[in-house]
Formats: sequence, structure tokens, C-alpha cells
Amino acid sequence: MDYSKFFSADVPSFLRSPVREIFRKVDLNAICSFAGGYPAACTFPLADIPGLAEKVLSKYGTKALQYGATQGVPELRELIASRYGVPVSQVQITTSSQQGIDVCTRVFVNPGEVILANNPVYLGALQSFRAYRALVLPLFGPGGISDGTPAPGKMAHNVAEGNIDGRGDGPKNTPGPKFIYVIPDFNNPSGETMSLREREEIVRLARELDCLIVEDSPYRELRYSGEPVVTIRELAPERTLQLGSFSKIFAPGFRLGWIIGPEQLLEQIYICKQCLDLCPPVFDQYLAAEFLGSGLLDANLQKTIVEYRHRRDLMVSLLEKYMPSGVSWTYPEGGLFLWLTLPSAVDTVALYDKALAAGVAYVAGSFFYTDGSHRNTMRLNFSFIDEAKMEPGIRLLASLIRDIAE
Amino acid sequence: MDYSKFFSADVPSFLRSPVREIFRKVDLNAICSFAGGYPAACTFPLADIPGLAEKVLSKYGTKALQYGATQGVPELRELIASRYGVPVSQVQITTSSQQGIDVCTRVFVNPGEVILANNPVYLGALQSFRAYRALVLPLFGPGGISDGTPAPGKMAHNVAEGNIDGRGDGPKNTPGPKFIYVIPDFNNPSGETMSLREREEIVRLARELDCLIVEDSPYRELRYSGEPVVTIRELAPERTLQLGSFSKIFAPGFRLGWIIGPEQLLEQIYICKQCLDLCPPVFDQYLAAEFLGSGLLDANLQKTIVEYRHRRDLMVSLLEKYMPSGVSWTYPEGGLFLWLTLPSAVDTVALYDKALAAGVAYVAGSFFYTDGSHRNTMRLNFSFIDEAKMEPGIRLLASLIRDIAE
Repeated sequence: MDYSKFFSADVPSFLRSPVREIFRKVDLNAICSFAGGYPAACTFPLADIPGLAEKVLSKYGTKALQYGATQGVPELRELIASRYGVPVSQVQITTSSQQGIDVCTRVFVNPGEVILANNPVYLGALQSFRAYRALVLPLFGPGGISDGTPAPGKMAHNVAEGNIDGRGDGPKNTPGPKFIYVIPDFNNPSGETMSLREREEIVRLARELDCLIVEDSPYRELRYSGEPVVTIRELAPERTLQLGSFSKIFAPGFRLGWIIGPEQLLEQIYICKQCLDLCPPVFDQYLAAEFLGSGLLDANLQKTIVEYRHRRDLMVSLLEKYMPSGVSWTYPEGGLFLWLTLPSAVDTVALYDKALAAGVAYVAGSFFYTDGSHRNTMRLNFSFIDEAKMEPGIRLLASLIRDIAE
Repeated sequence: MDYSKFFSADVPSFLRSPVREIFRKVDLNAICSFAGGYPAACTFPLADIPGLAEKVLSKYGTKALQYGATQGVPELRELIASRYGVPVSQVQITTSSQQGIDVCTRVFVNPGEVILANNPVYLGALQSFRAYRALVLPLFGPGGISDGTPAPGKMAHNVAEGNIDGRGDGPKNTPGPKFIYVIPDFNNPSGETMSLREREEIVRLARELDCLIVEDSPYRELRYSGEPVVTIRELAPERTLQLGSFSKIFAPGFRLGWIIGPEQLLEQIYICKQCLDLCPPVFDQYLAAEFLGSGLLDANLQKTIVEYRHRRDLMVSLLEKYMPSGVSWTYPEGGLFLWLTLPSAVDTVALYDKALAAGVAYVAGSFFYTDGSHRNTMRLNFSFIDEAKMEPGIRLLASLIRDIAE
């Protein structure tokens, strides 16, 4: 039976996650994996869960197992609102922050419309944008944020001319962008953080183009060095939807995130969410509320930051020790990733199968580029891998690179 | 600031759930509510949860708190596969069976394309269909399944002529339907069950029109009398996606459901689900797997069936006792609902505010019709309300109806 005729016009734009495809085929525990964006299992508050579960059941009883409000349970919304200094009416709980990205795309973007995004951009966002057939254009010049200077003039020109990725072969006279999508703190994949000036520039641009901003903040609370920069939401609350996540500050197995934004925008997201899954997982929301409300979350976060700071420093020192000349990397002040740029002779897509066979995994950088360029880059995750595997993994990777580059 | 310009073309088709809007305004515990589709809290295995949670944590450890496979955790997929006699490759876990409906619509239906559905149809499905701007046409003649005979000839003619709801004012020459959507067992809202002949007729029609079938089965395991009828999936496995739910056999607070269907269709649903939320809630999936695998689910289900059979019988006896002549109702062999047809003088939409003020809630039947017709009908839920409130509630409702009808 031929099933192809049954699929909607969106389906040909569906993009398989190369990261999730790796996980389908490989036992990550059997190799040195720098591929995923998984938190370290040792940061999960495993010992707290039975106590939290009992507290939830004694406090809320069967309410914790029943359907809940589409916006999220009031207790959790209030805790998020007070943590981030916004009214509770500006908080929508989502079933993962991936759902936040997806629902924003669905509610705001028609097929063919433009989203401006970091280049490289988070793969899960790119998947959602593509699946709705949005046109994803780079927000910055070809060097990304590392260039130092955003090029809004060039970018606005790009949009008007449909100059996708600077190739100039896009549709002409594309209407203005629907939103700007960025991870300003410890970007996935690049690990970079936007300066205040860059954030202000994005806000200026959004106001000039009269578009929204989706500020994705899954890693913001994981800062290991340097000083926090003000959020884009605080700079432009009238047009920013800020996405948050419990995956890196509690545990990803609960699939909980949130959106903070203007009520008029959240109202339509709320109605859409009725169709998506009626409400976020209720029992898990109460667990998160107890974890956050009791102060356990902040105590656990402090331990997590110490652990990840150590892993970042260890990885940087190993890169310095083993990588051949001509390899450079970003120095992330937080988050889970750093970004390697290799000599142009190294094609990380072509190298991948050989690396996997040798026992080391990464994600090729070109997967994060809308045009598949930058094949001499890769993303390395430092949060998931066992500390003991980090040195053999980096040494192995360095030797594979040296074989090609030298 | 005017936000209206930011919304996608789908947004004007978003339909607020009148049921969820009631819950936003009214404390259900303060009135006699026959409105929701909530399971009885007394059927939730509250006492089992701490033990299940401990078992999950000791058996799976931090794996239960980490990201999981997009298809669902293998343990739960295998249990579902073996319970329903299908290969594990034909099982996709969903974050609620509402997500199952939504993802099927997204993957198969373009704006303007036809879905054939029961009339009256489940409101959550209608919301998803509308939100994707599908054209929902009635599968049966005006009398619904109660008419006894499906009218596939008339229906096919309706589709070809764009004769929506028999009004003849739809777009002409609409292409054939993408899928047929039905709840064959204890339909929400009507409480009716399709006969084998009706199921065979639907399969014949789907094969004739070469379309898919979405068989929504959230209540199938809740049968209180009569004999089970074979599922549509078993009659037409090559073109049926069957949706299941843990909400009525475990607890809705975990937001877990599943899709059983052909692998070629599930493959695209799997890729789409990566965008939606990466994976279903992992901890909750392991809880469900332990609940199902240990036999606790079936033991709890037997108790639930006894409880709900009693409530159904009580409600039917109260309707017989209090309702004036000219009022008729369906006799559900299972599920959570029955359906009242009132004398034509009674407008249940107009009556609603008065009823709520008097202390009784229902859902007006016309909300479940694509054309808002059948304003002399209502859906009554018998699973959620406290037994003690059932008699005063039905007596009150009967007196309100008698005031108008006589």
C-alpha cells in the first residue's frame, strides 16, 4: 500500500533530528559521547523524588492525578511568576520548552513567512520552523555572534531581497519577519552569550521591523563565570515571548517548561494548547512546584553549577592539551556546549562515521546552519559524559582531526 | 499595542472549548456538574502511587528522569503492543490522546481538506480539526448513529457536492476525505456504540474512498454491559490509526496515550513529534508501565467498571423518575456520557446560564455539531459527580426542562 498520498503538504519539510537519529542507533554509554544535550544524571535530585511525591499526594490528593487547567496549575504558575518578577497572567506552563517553540511557530507563522534566527541555530527550533515551512534567515552576518557586530542593516536588506544565507537565491519581496528567535545566554550550539549591546540591537531591530522576539532561555540559570546580562524580555516586554525549561534545573523526564509574555499573545497560545494536549502533566507540575517552592531547586542548582563549571574547565584544558594548531573553540560562560572550528580541510560530516567507529561522538556543526555550511565545525557537549571518559574522548577526537589536518 | 497582525492564518479558526471555559469560571465542587468528562477521583490508584514511584526509581534510577526516546520508553511500548496484539513497531506513545488527534490532523490534513466525522463529534477533535482549517463533514445522515443505518451513499454525495451538514452551501468539488474520525465505543458525546455492521460499513467506505480511519478509543475498556464489538483497527489494520488513552484507566494527570497504526504512517508522526515535545513524559511512562505490567491496572479497572456501572444505572433510573414526557436518552453500554434529546421547545444553549445559577451544569449538545444545530440536546456525564449530588442534580434539571416544555 502506498501511503505517500495521505501526507499533508508540511510533511516533505519535516527534518529528522540528526542528534536523535544518533541516539536511535548507538548506545551512548558504550562510547565517548559529546553529541547530546543531556544533563548529567548526577545532577538529578533522585533522592528527593519519593519525598516530593508523598508531599504532593498528601497536599493535593487526587487533584494531582486529575485533569488540570490548560494554563498550568496555579501553584506552579505563581512560583514562576514570582521567581521572574512578572504577573501570573503572563505565565503559561508548557509540556516542555520544545512545545513552547512549536506553539509559537504555529500561532504566529504562516508557510513562507520569515523567522530571523541565530546562525548556527538550535536544531529543535529549526525542525519546528521547517515543519511549518517558515523561511529561516540569519540574524547576523556570516561570522555569527563571534563577529562581534550584528549586521542589522545587511540583515534587513537580506530579508527584503530574500537573500537567504547570503546566497541571494531566495524569493524576492518576502514580507517582514514574524519573529526573531535567539538563545542569548550560552547559545545552543555555539555556547556564546550576547552582550547587552547585541541584545539592545535586537530589540531596536524588532521595534523597527515591528516583529516579535522569541527569547529561548533554557540554560540561563546555569552560569559558571562572568556576570549575568539583562534578558531581552526585560528590555522589550511588550513584544518578547521568553521560553523557560525545567529540563536543566530539575529533570528533563518531566517535560515541563513555560512561556512568559504579553497576555494578548498568551491567550491565543492557551487556546491552541487546548488542541495540543489539553493541559501539561499535572502530577509532574506539582512535583516541580514542591521542588521549587521548598528551596530544593536552588540548592540543587548550586551543586549543578559547581559540577558543570568543573566539567567545562576540564574540557577546555583537555582541548588546550590535545588539539592541534588551527583548531579554535568558544569559551562558554554557562550552558552545556562549546563550539569547535577546525582547519578547513576537516569535514566533520564526512569524519562522523569514522569517529563513531573509533568510539567518539559529536554533532557536526553544519546541521545547525540553515544552508548546511560550516562543515569544518562541531558542537561538543560537556555536561553528559562521565568525567573519566572526557580525556580519552578528547584525545581520540584530536588524533582523528590531526590525521586530516596535518 | 495591537497584536492582531502577528497571528497566523490558523488563529481565527481557533475554537475555545465551551467545556474548558465553564471550568475557568465555575467551581465544579460547589454545584451539581454533569458538564465535564472527568473520571471519578475515587477510581484513581492514589495509594499505589508512592509504591510505583519507588519501584520506578529503584528499577530505572536516573533513566526515569532523563530525556527518553521520541517513540516512548521501550518497556511501555512493549506492554501496549502485547496487550493489543500488535508488533512494538506499530506503537507510538503520545503525550495525551488529544496529542494523538492533533498530530494526525497535522500530518495528514491540509487547510480546506475534508475529515468525515460522527455528528455529534468529540469537541477536542473538532477543535483540532478547525484549528488546521479542515472541513469537517458528517459521516452519517442527520439522525446520527441512532438512525440505525449509515448513509454512505448520501455521505459520498455530500462530500462531492460540498454539502456540509446537509445545508448544501459548502464549496463544490471538494477533494475526497483525508480520514474518517470516529469513537466507535461509547461515543463522546452521544454514549452510543457502533454495531459490527456499522464498523464494516465504515471500512468499506474508507477503502472505496481510499482514505485513512482515525479510531479514537479512550473509553473502550470501560464496558458495563453488552458484548465487545471488534475494533475498526482489526477490520482494517492497513489504514487505521487507533488512539488509546491512560486517562480513564490510570489517571489523566499523567497525560499519556498511544497510537497503534501502520509503521509507514507512524514514521512521519514520530518525526513530527520530535518538534512537538521531543518525547512523552518519561517518569510518568515508567509509572504507567509498572502499573500496567504489575497487574494493578486490570485490578483497578475492574473496580472502576463496577463503580461506573452503578453510576450509569443510577442516572438512568433518576432520568426515568424525574424527566417529563418527551425527553429521551441514550443507554450507554460503557464510557462516561449519555445524551438527552428534549422537546423542541427547549433550547439548551439558552437554558444554560439559568441552570448554572440554579446549581446544575451540563454541556449543550449543539456544541458538538459542526453547524451548531440540535439545540434541544445535551450531554450528561455520569462519572465525575458525587453520587449524593446525582439525585438533586437530575431533579433540578428535570424541573428546569419541565418549566419550558410544558
